[in-house]
Amino acid sequence: MPSSAVSYAGQNHPRFLDELKSLLRIPSVSTLPEHKADCRRAAEMLMMELSHIGMENAHLIETDGHPLVYADWLHAPGKPTALVYGHYDVQPPDPLEEWLSPPFEPTERNGNVYARGAVDDKGQVWTQVKALESLLAADGSLPLNVRVLFEGEEEVGGEGIAAFVASRPPDLKADFALVSDTELFAPGLPTLCVGLRGMIYTEIEARGARTDLHSGQYGGAAPNPFVALAQILAQLKDEAGHILVPGFYDDIVPPSPEELAAWRNLPFDEEEYRMAEVGSRQLVGEPGYSVLERTWARPTLDIHGMPGGFIGAGAKTVIPAKATAKVSMRLVPGMTPTKSFGLYKSYVEKIAPPGVDVDVRLIHSGDACLVPVDNRYIQAATRALKEVWGRDTVFIRAGGSIPIVGDFARHLGLPSVMMGFGLPDDNLHAPNEKFNLQNFALGIQSLIRFLEEAGS
Amino acid sequence: MPSSAVSYAGQNHPRFLDELKSLLRIPSVSTLPEHKADCRRAAEMLMMELSHIGMENAHLIETDGHPLVYADWLHAPGKPTALVYGHYDVQPPDPLEEWLSPPFEPTERNGNVYARGAVDDKGQVWTQVKALESLLAADGSLPLNVRVLFEGEEEVGGEGIAAFVASRPPDLKADFALVSDTELFAPGLPTLCVGLRGMIYTEIEARGARTDLHSGQYGGAAPNPFVALAQILAQLKDEAGHILVPGFYDDIVPPSPEELAAWRNLPFDEEEYRMAEVGSRQLVGEPGYSVLERTWARPTLDIHGMPGGFIGAGAKTVIPAKATAKVSMRLVPGMTPTKSFGLYKSYVEKIAPPGVDVDVRLIHSGDACLVPVDNRYIQAATRALKEVWGRDTVFIRAGGSIPIVGDFARHLGLPSVMMGFGLPDDNLHAPNEKFNLQNFALGIQSLIRFLEEAGS
Repeated sequence: MPSSAVSYAGQNHPRFLDELKSLLRIPSVSTLPEHKADCRRAAEMLMMELSHIGMENAHLIETDGHPLVYADWLHAPGKPTALVYGHYDVQPPDPLEEWLSPPFEPTERNGNVYARGAVDDKGQVWTQVKALESLLAADGSLPLNVRVLFEGEEEVGGEGIAAFVASRPPDLKADFALVSDTELFAPGLPTLCVGLRGMIYTEIEARGARTDLHSGQYGGAAPNPFVALAQILAQLKDEAGHILVPGFYDDIVPPSPEELAAWRNLPFDEEEYRMAEVGSRQLVGEPGYSVLERTWARPTLDIHGMPGGFIGAGAKTVIPAKATAKVSMRLVPGMTPTKSFGLYKSYVEKIAPPGVDVDVRLIHSGDACLVPVDNRYIQAATRALKEVWGRDTVFIRAGGSIPIVGDFARHLGLPSVMMGFGLPDDNLHAPNEKFNLQNFALGIQSLIRFLEEAGS
Repeated sequence: MPSSAVSYAGQNHPRFLDELKSLLRIPSVSTLPEHKADCRRAAEMLMMELSHIGMENAHLIETDGHPLVYADWLHAPGKPTALVYGHYDVQPPDPLEEWLSPPFEPTERNGNVYARGAVDDKGQVWTQVKALESLLAADGSLPLNVRVLFEGEEEVGGEGIAAFVASRPPDLKADFALVSDTELFAPGLPTLCVGLRGMIYTEIEARGARTDLHSGQYGGAAPNPFVALAQILAQLKDEAGHILVPGFYDDIVPPSPEELAAWRNLPFDEEEYRMAEVGSRQLVGEPGYSVLERTWARPTLDIHGMPGGFIGAGAKTVIPAKATAKVSMRLVPGMTPTKSFGLYKSYVEKIAPPGVDVDVRLIHSGDACLVPVDNRYIQAATRALKEVWGRDTVFIRAGGSIPIVGDFARHLGLPSVMMGFGLPDDNLHAPNEKFNLQNFALGIQSLIRFLEEAGS
């Protein structure tokens, strides 16, 4: 016997989808100045819709970039308060020629709606808004207190919302956050993300000669910063993928045997992943750990770029005065950015070869995050998902970070429920982004039932 | 008792300098399209001057870029023929704000003339033209046959002259080349350059995943091409500067004990060189070899740039699908580009770590070159220099290559006499380029006496 709100959602599904398409038609590309007005239009549409469905106090909050959208409904005394988060901005649609239908003309094909932002994150924002509408329309009230906070800069670093959250405004007082910007592990498999890796993003700058020199004249006497960097970088990680910074692994809290056992039961094929997702000759990483362990629960080290010297076509025989390596490390629970960076910096300084000065800089960092699964909101979510999807929820982690989850925890003390309904092949940030229409419908039902369970 | 041509040069020195200043006022920057007409103006001025002083058959030779200037005087039957080479194009003058006087307003200060091109190479070209004028004016003839070939693309790769020389035109039939684009080892020390290193310039491209990936999601499983390159590059050369490619040193013909002994007598201080020229914390390179040996007579390996990934300010967490290292090696007599590249390519392919495909490409190469000092033109040059400078000539090598010297040898079978009158602190390619006025005068005298000796 579905709740009346779930029935309402089912009856109104065609309209919900039409409305989502209207939102998808707005090219709210946050990184492109020419779409600044479009971002505001998307924010205004959300603000008006929130007001229209019965949320109160709906307004825009100005930032240095695109505005935040806020609304609340706080008439459930004694019940917890949810902070509902999503983002209305999207990635640029390039390369345009690879889209089968135009990125800002939502098109249905094969049970999906195709458009930039379909799954990341407008479709998921709309599941939230429509779940709230269904509850308010069917019941005349919400089962708990709700604050909504949408941002328009998630794809460009989220500075506006970070500053707002860091100011700890009374308007964000809540008990937990509902973040809908993640995906199912596999089609039909209800999924909650309960762990994120942290990171330190660094630069190593090596300086040799005072100015750029000619390699004919000075090669064999002048230090070459790229050679020095290669020597340093090759000592950061061995060929098996083990990070060589002394003490780097000391504080790691490994996943529990139960969590590892659950991961082994996930429908995941490493060879399929290698061929279909990565497309490399072979995978790399620490022996003895599965791909899921390596990407979710082990620290890693990557080099992202090495600015300096000559990078044009052809040949220039320069020994550059300096060169830089952009190096990041992903951290896992137990590790802290401060300690990890300190160990790394000392080690790099120690192994730097003669002839160069090195400068090791921290560009930014984020804490790893782990949500205990015995948390009452996670429990409520699993009950709701079981009912809607007919299967037990899988708890997964993600290898990346969702900075806002860390901000909610650090500044507001809120645990996050990361419940999203994307699929691994939804082409996030790529051409032909899509959102599965059944997931859109079941997503709304799941959120309705989750809010009901969380308020019960 | 100076020759009458030398007397003529002395009497006319003020005019020669005024004329040089006219040439220096033409901003013939070969790399900048807006100076195309200026390059032609400089070529035409040289053509007219050659005709004016009594050279014959003066004309421009069109190329795909800036024109060549040709003239000859071939009325010394039974005497050898010299091919006189220099270039009229100059480097861009940036950064302008560092010039104490404008780069294209030649200014005398401290016994120097300051201007872009003063020493590289207009001042030296003018020593050649004025030596020819002095001989023709004082004697009514030249002591040997002379062909003049000036180019206007030396600073941008010299493609026009290379193609022309490769076509082996009858107009370039000669017995030796006189190349005036080098410098004295120290002030007052007559110098001939008799050796140049060769080179191979390569790219190593490493490819991992099919597309760029996010390091949060894939870090720990997807191969990182920069990590692979660092591992490869760190195995190319050890920290002492010894190249680790097997067989790389096998064919080296070392300098003779006499040449090494002569180098040890050169006025050269490694600590002064480190501080004043290189400006690095310490010098690098193979232990047991002096700086001059390391830069003139030992192969070296340098990395010039590593295109790929993210090189902007800040952080982007990309695992790039591919990355490239631009790597060159300087070669010394005995080594050949073909064999050296083959050894290097095999080694790189062998040490490439799992997960990546590597592609090792040769971008360009040049042979090392060694001029025997018992060559009659070198002997004639040393006699002339001794007379003008009052000191024995030092034979040095250069660590770089002068491609035209290789082209003259390969296509025309000509040995080159590399006789130039720059000084190590003349600011070639830098602000406040200068030419010492005494060297300008002694350079003209040296060339007059050299041509007389070569024809005797």
